[in-house]
Amino acid sequence: MMRAIELARKGLGTTSPNPPVGAVIVRDGILLGEGYHEVAGEPHAERLAISNAIRKGNKALLKGATIYITLEPCSSHGKTPPCTDAIIEVEIGRVVYGAVDPDDRHRGRADELLRAHGIDVEHGVCGEVCEILVRSWAWSVKHKRPWVLAKVATTMDGRMTRRDDRWLSSPKALRNAHQLRLESDAILVGGGTVRMDDPALTVRTPLQTPSPRKLQPYRIVLTEDRRSIPADCMMLTDQYADRTVIIEKVSDFQKMLEELYSRYGIVNLLLECGGRLLRRFLEEGLVNEWVQDIAPILGGGPAPMVPGDYLKRECRFKEEEILACEPDIILRGILE
Amino acid sequence: MMRAIELARKGLGTTSPNPPVGAVIVRDGILLGEGYHEVAGEPHAERLAISNAIRKGNKALLKGATIYITLEPCSSHGKTPPCTDAIIEVEIGRVVYGAVDPDDRHRGRADELLRAHGIDVEHGVCGEVCEILVRSWAWSVKHKRPWVLAKVATTMDGRMTRRDDRWLSSPKALRNAHQLRLESDAILVGGGTVRMDDPALTVRTPLQTPSPRKLQPYRIVLTEDRRSIPADCMMLTDQYADRTVIIEKVSDFQKMLEELYSRYGIVNLLLECGGRLLRRFLEEGLVNEWVQDIAPILGGGPAPMVPGDYLKRECRFKEEEILACEPDIILRGILE
Repeated sequence: MMRAIELARKGLGTTSPNPPVGAVIVRDGILLGEGYHEVAGEPHAERLAISNAIRKGNKALLKGATIYITLEPCSSHGKTPPCTDAIIEVEIGRVVYGAVDPDDRHRGRADELLRAHGIDVEHGVCGEVCEILVRSWAWSVKHKRPWVLAKVATTMDGRMTRRDDRWLSSPKALRNAHQLRLESDAILVGGGTVRMDDPALTVRTPLQTPSPRKLQPYRIVLTEDRRSIPADCMMLTDQYADRTVIIEKVSDFQKMLEELYSRYGIVNLLLECGGRLLRRFLEEGLVNEWVQDIAPILGGGPAPMVPGDYLKRECRFKEEEILACEPDIILRGILE
Repeated sequence: MMRAIELARKGLGTTSPNPPVGAVIVRDGILLGEGYHEVAGEPHAERLAISNAIRKGNKALLKGATIYITLEPCSSHGKTPPCTDAIIEVEIGRVVYGAVDPDDRHRGRADELLRAHGIDVEHGVCGEVCEILVRSWAWSVKHKRPWVLAKVATTMDGRMTRRDDRWLSSPKALRNAHQLRLESDAILVGGGTVRMDDPALTVRTPLQTPSPRKLQPYRIVLTEDRRSIPADCMMLTDQYADRTVIIEKVSDFQKMLEELYSRYGIVNLLLECGGRLLRRFLEEGLVNEWVQDIAPILGGGPAPMVPGDYLKRECRFKEEEILACEPDIILRGILE
């Protein structure tokens, strides 16, 4: 299962609106085949693992073998036929999967179907890790809008800038930030950030899962007036300019997110906006996950991370994870 | 040496202006005696360990035994005679110590003296831990003012208050805060904190090193006008009122610190002041150590930790240590 999880992670950032899934077929301790889902519309991990086994000349061994999958195999027709069919067809003997299908209508259906064909089924193996892998996807399937991860870099005194415009983040923390971009379908900023910093918002540093299929994330710019965005800005002039979306005069943020999901298939949305916009997302309870890179510095600029008075609604940070990115400290967790 | 360090830690908070020191005498793997320095003017750890051994009937065994001491033994007359004399007198065979004497005039003197009497000497054993134990003392000996530790509790967005005046810190983090008070000789706040919060600034929770000799720390209040401090405030009316010192109209902060050192023997000063005073200490480069308790909350009050624009001088946070005080995270390190 650890290998299946490793494979699934290769799909992070390329599978939306599908989830990342990995699969490994084993018999008597021998690896027969493996695969992971890479791009929506293409075969799922299970089918890829089966065809990988066949290509390796292991077809005859599939009967009675065990397949490890990070997610409950699909049992319904989508863009591709159900994976349960493929598993039944090659007469796999045992199916072990991690996370259950988040969709109430499908959950457990695979177990029934497979067992009806005499196949052993076990689930929940490495369940927690497998569930975190598909957490954002499961959430967006249910809520019909993207899982929103807000990323901020601050001084220890909670400011977002340093004197003389120096970088706040350490090289290690910057690599982490690019990894977040890699795993996201889109990055959102406000017009002010474009005018002030003219960022490219592309994935640039060496990547942990360098899939050649990874497209640059969409770049979403929220503005009151699209004419205020300089026509010669990076995002409108670089080679990925067709991945830049300017959205004007948003009044209903939740609806805007729903549109990003339905129209662009955005499951993982990364906020890299300034404090004012961040405050709006926080107050409307639209931020799911929080990543804060704390630089080991006191005495940052006048701009606080979340400007203004108390938030209408205090957010609790949970399931925290502490990453030491010397000399920075990165806190990552869920917001409630 | 680990036992000697454990003993030394028992003296934290009671030995000033002396350093905490522990000593253990061993022979053939048998513990003959042990001791730690508890209060200035009373015997040092080495002498206490020797008399402890004698009291246990181990006098005859001291000849040729090994003494482990966390700090280089003193070789000069202070309020008590030099410890090297005592070691020589009972004919200890080997001296192993951790930290060297920070005073250039004395450093290494013990080695010479002891070796001249045929005693083996080794130093630097667990040197780093032993040096951190006496770090604040060594610093104050050199600079003639207290080692200043600033302690703040903040939200993740760097604010010092929560809506409805609720506590920011978790119970575990509060215990840590009281441990800091225990290890301090004095706590400093501004008049505003007294007027607003009326704190007691006493050590209250169960302590890790509950020495009966521990006095409550001095409470230092800085104010422009002593009449602005309510006469019925906690610090002026509780049973430790004689440990409250009000200082008016401070213009030279460094000089004020020098007076706290020379007049009250304050080696470890804990700042629990508000942002305005904290900013002043930071800008003047008078803060040595920083402890920040970060509560897992976003959306704190309007008061930022360090109010105002960029600090005149950015502080770097080093040698960081991360303490998980679920659900809080405590960052502790040196400021430069």
